[in-house]
Formats: sequence, structure tokens, C-alpha cells
Amino acid sequence: MSDNISSAWTHLQSLPQRTLAELFEGDDARVDTLSARIEWDVEEGQAGILFDWSKTHLDADLIAGFEKLAKACDFAGKRTKLFGGEIVNVTEGRAATHSAMRGVGDDADVEEGQALLARMGMLVEAIHGGALGEVEHLIHIGIGGSALGPALAVDALTRDLALVDVHVVSNIDGVALEAAFEACDPAKTLIAVASKTFTTIETMTNAASALKWLSDNGVPDPTGRVVALTASPERAVEWGVDETRVLPFPESVGGRYSLWSSIGFPVALAVGMEDFTPMLAGAQAVDLHFRDTDGAENLCLRAAFADQYYTRLRGCQTRACFAYDERLGLLPNYLQQLEMESNGKRVKADGSPVDGPTAPITWGGVGTDAQHAVFQLLHQGTHLVPVDFIVSIAPGDALDPAHHAILLTNCFAQGAALMAGGNMAADGKDPARAFPGDRPSATMLCDDLDAATLGALIAFHEHRVFANAVLMEINPFDQFGVELGKKMANEIGSGDGDFDASTKALLERAGLAD
Amino acid sequence: MSDNISSAWTHLQSLPQRTLAELFEGDDARVDTLSARIEWDVEEGQAGILFDWSKTHLDADLIAGFEKLAKACDFAGKRTKLFGGEIVNVTEGRAATHSAMRGVGDDADVEEGQALLARMGMLVEAIHGGALGEVEHLIHIGIGGSALGPALAVDALTRDLALVDVHVVSNIDGVALEAAFEACDPAKTLIAVASKTFTTIETMTNAASALKWLSDNGVPDPTGRVVALTASPERAVEWGVDETRVLPFPESVGGRYSLWSSIGFPVALAVGMEDFTPMLAGAQAVDLHFRDTDGAENLCLRAAFADQYYTRLRGCQTRACFAYDERLGLLPNYLQQLEMESNGKRVKADGSPVDGPTAPITWGGVGTDAQHAVFQLLHQGTHLVPVDFIVSIAPGDALDPAHHAILLTNCFAQGAALMAGGNMAADGKDPARAFPGDRPSATMLCDDLDAATLGALIAFHEHRVFANAVLMEINPFDQFGVELGKKMANEIGSGDGDFDASTKALLERAGLAD
Repeated sequence: MSDNISSAWTHLQSLPQRTLAELFEGDDARVDTLSARIEWDVEEGQAGILFDWSKTHLDADLIAGFEKLAKACDFAGKRTKLFGGEIVNVTEGRAATHSAMRGVGDDADVEEGQALLARMGMLVEAIHGGALGEVEHLIHIGIGGSALGPALAVDALTRDLALVDVHVVSNIDGVALEAAFEACDPAKTLIAVASKTFTTIETMTNAASALKWLSDNGVPDPTGRVVALTASPERAVEWGVDETRVLPFPESVGGRYSLWSSIGFPVALAVGMEDFTPMLAGAQAVDLHFRDTDGAENLCLRAAFADQYYTRLRGCQTRACFAYDERLGLLPNYLQQLEMESNGKRVKADGSPVDGPTAPITWGGVGTDAQHAVFQLLHQGTHLVPVDFIVSIAPGDALDPAHHAILLTNCFAQGAALMAGGNMAADGKDPARAFPGDRPSATMLCDDLDAATLGALIAFHEHRVFANAVLMEINPFDQFGVELGKKMANEIGSGDGDFDASTKALLERAGLAD
Repeated sequence: MSDNISSAWTHLQSLPQRTLAELFEGDDARVDTLSARIEWDVEEGQAGILFDWSKTHLDADLIAGFEKLAKACDFAGKRTKLFGGEIVNVTEGRAATHSAMRGVGDDADVEEGQALLARMGMLVEAIHGGALGEVEHLIHIGIGGSALGPALAVDALTRDLALVDVHVVSNIDGVALEAAFEACDPAKTLIAVASKTFTTIETMTNAASALKWLSDNGVPDPTGRVVALTASPERAVEWGVDETRVLPFPESVGGRYSLWSSIGFPVALAVGMEDFTPMLAGAQAVDLHFRDTDGAENLCLRAAFADQYYTRLRGCQTRACFAYDERLGLLPNYLQQLEMESNGKRVKADGSPVDGPTAPITWGGVGTDAQHAVFQLLHQGTHLVPVDFIVSIAPGDALDPAHHAILLTNCFAQGAALMAGGNMAADGKDPARAFPGDRPSATMLCDDLDAATLGALIAFHEHRVFANAVLMEINPFDQFGVELGKKMANEIGSGDGDFDASTKALLERAGLAD
């Protein structure tokens, strides 16, 4: 850690800890100072998301201290490298060009991204036009970064209408694939096989079983029904997919950052290119904001300041995200991977150990459901959990407006209650009915929840993760932590390797020992 | 805290911290000592679950220390009260009789439970027999404890066949209810309204909209299609449900412990009483084990020892559960409520403050999916997370056996890798590819995943929660933490109350201010 970085932390640690009540009391402009919108053009003018960080413990001193830290960590320089297509994933010697897929990045990367997306668009439109016969279903096979984005976006954006019915299958557990078979007519089903390397064991095993199902059900040319989404197009061709149905994406687009590439194919097929493209546009609005805004006015960086404050200065091991929107039910899953796989590390980009806690556990749920399940702990538990709320002003339903009014009201009331605290007993004295308050939350208030907003929300979190990584000096783009378990699974499978007594006993009990 | 309790903790804190490798090295019998099965009768003999806690840091000294703590906390006495139907929920003056629904408890409670279940069984069988006409769909409306159990059990047990297609709707967000409408034929749909008090705003609003949908679609007597599941039968009758379709459950069965009562109606309707009853039988096997086994041989208590060790002595703010089974995809959600709503408290049953951390945040996911999403942090992050694995020896699918073999192999390999650590670099020296190891996990290896096993798994966690509560001197059966947010939402709704500047600004922006 450079002297500047460590003295920035020392200063931050020395700052007084004020309560939220104190922060609000002393500052009439607090809400204005700590709220801002990111916007993009729509037909009727501007749409956007309001980011209100005023109910966190950030104040002018902390923000100034974190801005100093960001400077010491060369935030601006690292951001320039990111958008310049330079090698930021140093352990794997790669750039990270997911923003280029949205039109923001080095010219050559942007051009490549546009060409690949145009290719995907042509295939999507050809399929909608009947080039592959009658297509009602898509079984999308992929895992981790090849599954969570498509699953989230399809679930969020196809509530009113899906042009093609998409089933995302990730688990090696055959129960998952069987559920998709159950819901699809093989004669009208395409299979998407999504794997960056085209070697992922879950995906390739599921793909083989899907082909067998097509074949068992009399589909004449099963591989002719496959679309491959991969950064290893040659392997897909070798596996048997005709080149016209191979949609490549660049090696420099990481799995958990790949929804914008051909991994988004199932989304585009379900909603059409004219609804897929706005998702990229919403993300682009956040790219431009993140690239062009300095200091704490940069909302992704501001969020990272709060994240670092709670993790490092208040000892929080988790952060929670509650979308008050049924359509964002899969968002916590998506953010878990994005944040924990990116920043759940022990060493810095230079290989030296990080000298503090890294990414917290991201968890969450959907409101109002979560209020009746886990909010007890948020209000009265002993662990401090910083909370993000996400909610849309426009309703997603056409029922009695009471539904959406109650939804919004509850969302705001929870943030208010976490901060205010109080006592529910008539005499105000029952300790079991006491709420300490001073518990932080941030709110993302969306004008609406459409494709652009979803794109913006995801890009916001991508850049928030990057900003956190810079402040911790981590490389957020590798994921070696998944390798050891894979290696040991292979050793078990091949009968090699020496295992502990517990693992041996479990293998034996399950009938998997030699 | 009594002197005995505090000296038990002092002793526990003084014990040396040994690594898992050291614990295994010194003890050839470790796996046998820390593994045991809970079993129940099946046609072919005995089925059950193996609980292997050997890859946690529990050792003989810690276990002896925790047994002393359990004694100081009067574990045995409190357990006797629980099963005796005495008032254990002291803040609400109630017993907690969920075990009685499974046949284990005070005679009068067991008798009442049997009678209520018999009543439910008659209605289920009448519906299957056509008493309410052709019934293909059930929209089950409930939230929190009235939704999570039915959703989990229906998802887990109806993969092969559902007698009735069940849609669980909880969220006030109308998008949730609309999705159920989309999937159901109103002429063949029943509505279950599940609410302990029959006043829950989400549930009553959704119920009203469901009736409107039936009526809009020409169903002649909408309330005639409703089945009420409630501890307030008089309110259900008042609301318009005919008494023959009101299925009561006792006030002493808490929401998050209510799957065994009439809240299980959607499960019974989907799988039939002959498959619902084994779920109770599996739970009963755990009840009897928990009631009749002393010290660390009591597997629920042993699990609580490990939980307390990690939370209190190792500072873990979370614990994770990964079921390597697609059918248990909703288990983490279920356990979140069970554990966090029960033990996410700040005060003891006597009102005095708890002097240490209480329930950690329960999170998790499904294997192998989670390996490709969050395991990075488990292996290489800085936060210690104790992990539970759950997996079934028998496959749930009929595909190529490779699917299930890979599933099992990966589950065991992850536990082995978390403990062993290592370095994936060829020279063994790359810090980015280094795994520290010594990370704990427990494994629940099920013979199969059927209704009895599901019941046993859930009951295991219920009693584990109770055992943790005893060790922390908490009342796990109230949930006052949910009240303040509700009150403030009502104040917003009625235009009363005074709110902070952020909440006011959000209300205004969303068009909800006066």
C-alpha cells in the first residue's frame, strides 16, 4: 500500500462517527447534496433513476477523505485504462471491454462490438422471420455468467409478452433440464449453448442431453437446432455447430459482464432487437456518467465510498439489496455473482495481500416479501447491514392502483423506519419492541422499469464494483477462486488424488469410491 | 447472564484455535465421532440423512465447553417446556406447538393438530373428488410464513407430477398476481387465502384482486372458490368464506413454523394427502431425535454449537447453505426467514440486551450453479463463511447418470477444497492462485430427496434455531421487528406522521405526498 493510500485510510479512520439523525439535523441541504439522477433520452424527453444516498452515513468529511483515497489509488488513471481497452485484468493479461459492447470504449473495441451485435441481430431477426422453422421455445444452456444475466433480463422484460418462450438451464442436476423439456415442444425448440470456453462441464453435459432429447423425439438434425454463444467459436464449430449459428463475443468480455454480448441472445430473441437495444442504451448512459464525472459526483464512485465505509470502517460483512419489484426477483442473484466473484479476493492486483476486508456478501430479496421474512434482523438484529432499495414510480401491473401505492409506501417506510428507530410499546419502554434506528439505506427510484432502466441499473453496479476494486487495489476481472474445487472434482471423477477422511467417507457412502 | 453462562463463555473463549488439518491429523476417529444419521422407517427398511460435522472446527474441548453452556442455559428444561406445550413465546404469552402438528408434543395439542389435519385432509380429498367442480389450478395467496413453506414444498415435491397446478403469490406488487392469472384458467381455479390474522394487507389486497379477476371472467360465485387458511377463522367467515372452506390452525403455531398446519394445504392439494403425510413423518423423526437425545449427540444441538462457535468466537456475520439439488432452490429463502426472523434479535427473552452477536445472515444457493457465481469469495475472500452442503445420493432425474455423478462429485470436492486449500499455479507460488484453506463446511447427505426427507430437513433446521435461541437466551417465536415499518407505512398511507427529509423527498418525487 502506498504511503498516500495508507494515510488516506488513517485519516478516514480518525473521522468522528455521527448518527444519521445528527447528519440530517445539521444539514438542510443533505438530501439535495446526496441525491442525483442519471438520465437518458426517451421519446417524451428524459427518463432516469434517482440515486438517494442521504440515508447513509456519508458526510462532507468522509467524502473528502474518500476522494483523497480515490486519488491516491489513481482512480482516474485506472478508469482511463478501463475505457481505453488497456490491460486491466493483469493476471490474465486482458482488457475488460464490456462497456465497448454498449458503444463506450476504445474505437476498435466499439467497432468489433457493433459488428458482433449486428451479426446477432441478423440471426435473431432471421429466426423471428422463420428461417429456422416454427420456433416457440428456446432452451438456453449456460451457467454462472452465461446464465444469470439472461435469466434476470428475460424474467424482468417479458412479463407482458415473450416472442419466444425462454428456459434458462444451468445446473448439472438433470432435474433442471427435465423441467425445461417438460415445458417445451421439441419440434419447435432451439437450444442455445452459452460458454465462454465451450468446455464448461455442466453446459456441455446439458447440451449433450438436450441433443439426445431432440433426437429421441424425432427431430431430424439436432445440432442444426443449436445456437452457440462463445468466445471460442472454433470449439463450437468443432463440436458440430454450423458457423452461421455461432455468435462469438470477445475474449475481453468477462462472463459476469457478458449480458451485453451474444450472451444476451436469449433476451434479444425473447424481446426482439428493438427492445434489446434500449438495454444497451440505458447502460451506455451510465457508462458516460461514470467515465466523465469526477469525485463523489460520480454516483458509482459515491456508492463505492459508502460500500468501503461500511465494510472497512464499520465492519459490515454483508450488504443487502431489496428491489420492490417482482420483475427484479433475480437481481440479488445477479449482483451476488457480479460483486462477490469480482471483489471476493485476498490479494491485490500486484499479488500482495489486501490489508483489510474485501467484498462483503451481497444478499437480498424482493419487497414487500422480504419484509415478512428477513427484515426482523435488519431492524432488531445485532449485525449492521447497509441496505439498497430499488423501486419504480410507474407500476408494472394493471390492477387496482392500490397495489403499487402500497408497494412504494412500504419501500419508503422501511428506509425511514431503519433510520428513525423507536419503540412500538404503548409506554415506549418494552425492550422487545424497541428499534435502535440509525441503520443506513440507499434508494434507487426509477421513473419506470423498462429495458433501458434495467441496463442502467446493471451498468451502475458494474462500475460500482470497479470503483470498489480500485479503492481496494484489486483486479476485479479474474476468478481463480473457482479453480481448486473444479480440479478436485476432476480428481474424484478420475479416481486420482488423495482426500481427507470426511470426503472419503462421503464418497463411499454415496457409492462413488473406487 | 447468569454466572454459569458467562463462565461457560469465558472458558470457550480461552480454548486454543486449531486448524481443520490439525484436528484431522490428531484424530483417526474424527469422522465417526462427528457424523451420525437420523433415520425413519420406510417400506424397504430405514431411510435417513447423514449429518457430517467433521469439517467444522468443533473438537472434544469445544463440545464439552458448549455442553456446559447448554446446561447453564437449561437447554433440557427449555426443551421440555417446548414439547410440553408450555408458554415459551413469553413476550406474546404463547406456546409453540408446531411439533404437535407432527404428533410430538402435549397430548391435547397433538389431538388438536390431528383433528385440524384430518379436517384439511377431508377438504383436499373432496376437491380431488370433484366436490368443487373441475380444479386444475390453485392460486395460493399468502406472504412470509404463509408463502415460503408452501412454495418450497410444492417446488421440491411436484417435479414429476402435480395433481393441481399451484401458484404461490405473495408480493403486493400486482405483477406477481398477474403472472398467476396468466397461467390459470379462471373457471378451473381455486384461491387459497393464507393469513394467520386474516388482516395482512398484502394478502387481503391480493385476495380482493383475485376475486375481481374471477368475477371479471364470469365465475358466478367468486368467494365460493376461496379456501381460507388462518388462525382467525371468525375473520375469514366475516370476510365471506363459507365455514366448510375455512381451515384453521392453532394460534400457537407461528407463521414461519406453519407448513405442517393448514398452511400446508396447497402442498397437500398438489401432492395428495398420501404424499403430504410422509413430510410430517420425516419431521417427526427429527422431533423424536431432538426431544430424546442429550448433549452433542443431539444433532440439532451440535449444529447450534458450531453456529455459536462461528458467530460468537470467530466473528462470522453470515452462514451459507448450498443444496446441490435443483428441487431445493427455495430452501435458502425458507431458511433465511426461519433463522433470521427467529433469532435476529437484540434482547433476551427477559428483556435484557444480548451481550454478543445474534443470528447471522443466512444466505446460499443451489449447486453447482453457485460454484460459478459466489464460491470465489468462499475460497479466496476475506470473510469466513461456514457452509452447509445438502445433497441426495439418489438422483432426482432420469437422464444420463453422468449428471448426478458430477453433481455429487462437485459437492464433495467443494467441501474438500475449502478445507485443504492449495495453490493452482504450476510453481505453487502465484498469490492470485493461492487458497488458504481451513474453511469449514458441514454436509447433509440424504439417501433420497422425498417428502419425508424434506420434512426432516426442515424440522432439523427448526430445532437448530431453537437450540441456538436457548444458547443465546432469546425468544425465537416473536417478531416485533416487522412492526415499525408497517406502522410507518400506515402513517404514510393515511397522510399522518412526520418523516425525515429524504423520505419526504422520495414520496414527493413518486407523487405520493399530500
